[in-house]
Amino acid sequence: VTALPAERLRVTYQLSCGPGEAPEARARDIAVEQTVELPLQCVPREIAARFVGQIEAIEPLGDGRWHVVIAYDPIVLDDAVPQLVNLLFGNISLKPPVLVTAIDWPPSLLARLGGPRWGIEGVRALVGGEAQRPLLCTALKPLGLSAVELAHLCYRFALGGIDIIKDDHNLANQATAPFRERVERCQEAIAKANRESGGSSRYFPNLGVGSPALAEHIAFVRTAGCRGVLLSPLILGLDAVHWIAATAELAILAHPSLSGVWFRPDHGIVPELLYGEIYRAVGCDGVIYTNVGGRFDFPEAACHAINANLRKPLGLLRPAFPVPGGGVDVQRVRHWIDRYGIDTILLIGGSLYAQGDLTAASRRLLDTVRAHCQERLVKEAGG
Amino acid sequence: VTALPAERLRVTYQLSCGPGEAPEARARDIAVEQTVELPLQCVPREIAARFVGQIEAIEPLGDGRWHVVIAYDPIVLDDAVPQLVNLLFGNISLKPPVLVTAIDWPPSLLARLGGPRWGIEGVRALVGGEAQRPLLCTALKPLGLSAVELAHLCYRFALGGIDIIKDDHNLANQATAPFRERVERCQEAIAKANRESGGSSRYFPNLGVGSPALAEHIAFVRTAGCRGVLLSPLILGLDAVHWIAATAELAILAHPSLSGVWFRPDHGIVPELLYGEIYRAVGCDGVIYTNVGGRFDFPEAACHAINANLRKPLGLLRPAFPVPGGGVDVQRVRHWIDRYGIDTILLIGGSLYAQGDLTAASRRLLDTVRAHCQERLVKEAGG
Repeated sequence: VTALPAERLRVTYQLSCGPGEAPEARARDIAVEQTVELPLQCVPREIAARFVGQIEAIEPLGDGRWHVVIAYDPIVLDDAVPQLVNLLFGNISLKPPVLVTAIDWPPSLLARLGGPRWGIEGVRALVGGEAQRPLLCTALKPLGLSAVELAHLCYRFALGGIDIIKDDHNLANQATAPFRERVERCQEAIAKANRESGGSSRYFPNLGVGSPALAEHIAFVRTAGCRGVLLSPLILGLDAVHWIAATAELAILAHPSLSGVWFRPDHGIVPELLYGEIYRAVGCDGVIYTNVGGRFDFPEAACHAINANLRKPLGLLRPAFPVPGGGVDVQRVRHWIDRYGIDTILLIGGSLYAQGDLTAASRRLLDTVRAHCQERLVKEAGG
Repeated sequence: VTALPAERLRVTYQLSCGPGEAPEARARDIAVEQTVELPLQCVPREIAARFVGQIEAIEPLGDGRWHVVIAYDPIVLDDAVPQLVNLLFGNISLKPPVLVTAIDWPPSLLARLGGPRWGIEGVRALVGGEAQRPLLCTALKPLGLSAVELAHLCYRFALGGIDIIKDDHNLANQATAPFRERVERCQEAIAKANRESGGSSRYFPNLGVGSPALAEHIAFVRTAGCRGVLLSPLILGLDAVHWIAATAELAILAHPSLSGVWFRPDHGIVPELLYGEIYRAVGCDGVIYTNVGGRFDFPEAACHAINANLRKPLGLLRPAFPVPGGGVDVQRVRHWIDRYGIDTILLIGGSLYAQGDLTAASRRLLDTVRAHCQERLVKEAGG
């Protein structure tokens, strides 16, 4: 009988060393800081051997940059997400710059995290099952409209065929459109639009409260008939996301609010890993990110890397939808379909609002998307 | 009858403008991005007037840096913390660098947030009420010890007179020392030590899980007899902290895990504001930060600013304890008392462990602290 190789959580870091600084010392410091947090002479030998991260690689990248791989025994983790976050970037967030660039996940950890409950296929099925095109998503805004006004927008977008109509992420429980009233009215509006159009649009309300009201809000949106929600993982906490994914049977669309604090070029977790693997592993079915060319500033290579990670094989996790937002409008929608492929949700806000008649604008967009995808299919068949 | 002046949440930012970039445009972009998130031509006029932030000041700081003040109507908020975080740094986290340097809190918002349940006076009372010295805190570590071993450390520290003995922040629910067993054994150990010594040490377990197990863990630690907890606000979520402070009657010691992602020199929220006002406003009774000269790198001016904010008058909020960690040992403890004053909790870990006999080391430290504070009192009386 051969023993199975022990599982390891391998984390890849990039770091810079000044003159006279040894990359080995920096790597050892990370391996200790993220685990036992004591000088090694104060740590019993058998604990140091098992609990301190093992340095597996230190390689120069040029210009004083180094590539470091540290392997952690999953025994340092428990079943919840907070300790995973501690391990990945807790204390080192406060130390000299270090960038987490890759994670090699132990299959048992992925299985425990569980990933998306719905995934790409499941979310498609929720909105009617059309397989050969990207889905379309828009946001109800601005903050300040009443629940009745937001529900009217919801109705008009749904009538035009937008698949997912989500709350803006800053619609919480403000007096102008209280959560419960908004959810009920928007859900009624979308049901009415679907009856009239024969469509399958869905309304995803924003979960903007933490524990314990969160559980009540989840029960409320389910009772109202919603099948998905928007939330901001870094504001509610990644563990809350994990719990919702595992228990609520709601599709989860992740908003990037606050996530920019992580994306320092030399310190943090690279976006394709935070959005593409960590958000996916804890259970997001779709991940909104700030598309290149929009009102935020994200390079196209990062967008492609996020897309690839969300869709790639990762243990037994379902793939999740990339949801580029910003810079997508009727004029450019064909371009983005060609760049990103059909397993994408295109988030389109301002450019629909700017057209005034939301139903007509939405329908025009959907027609363009369908026609372009049809054309691509014909080309592929011919090629 | 004169109308009361409307309450405003005023946020002060610092930002850089490149050549040809107008600070007015950057300020307007922030005011819109953090509220209505739509081009103003798509926003009804009465909503724009009330919901978009009002720019109150734009002043040059030299070198292309600008000081900007934007006032928000509290109507953009609800009763929970997540939307406050969205407003303060949600979407702008993803945009060009901007630093939040000050908040002018509306009294009604502070009242709603509530602040520390115990505060400096309350936490002092929890550990015996000695008023004329800083409190002493240490951490149970390393990860990997069994619950029995951790409880033994707890006993020895308590016997030496350490006031607060907390879990290390990465002690979660690992198989080596499961949460419930650890809490029970450490709490028994501390009770035994207090009986033997006549002391009033307290054990603060780490709350390392999110919703909904968090509520069970809180009930468990209360039943076990603990009066305070450690938690990492940025990992559990600030709203979870607020809920615990408002309902659990447990003193809250905040750990800085993960907070370093916020502290870019030109992008984020300055530490004296995040730790000193936001953590305090949501209910932390003590805030651990990485002291200058320790194994992390924080300038002394920032430490003083954090201390000042935690203790200053802020609405009706109770003051909270600064808890500098790192760089504090028996040799230097007098220095830090002179620098930071007695309304401080000194967090001392490695330098106690390094001495081997934890009880003797703790007692020596406490004796030094008491003697030095007595000396200071005598000097003051003489002066």
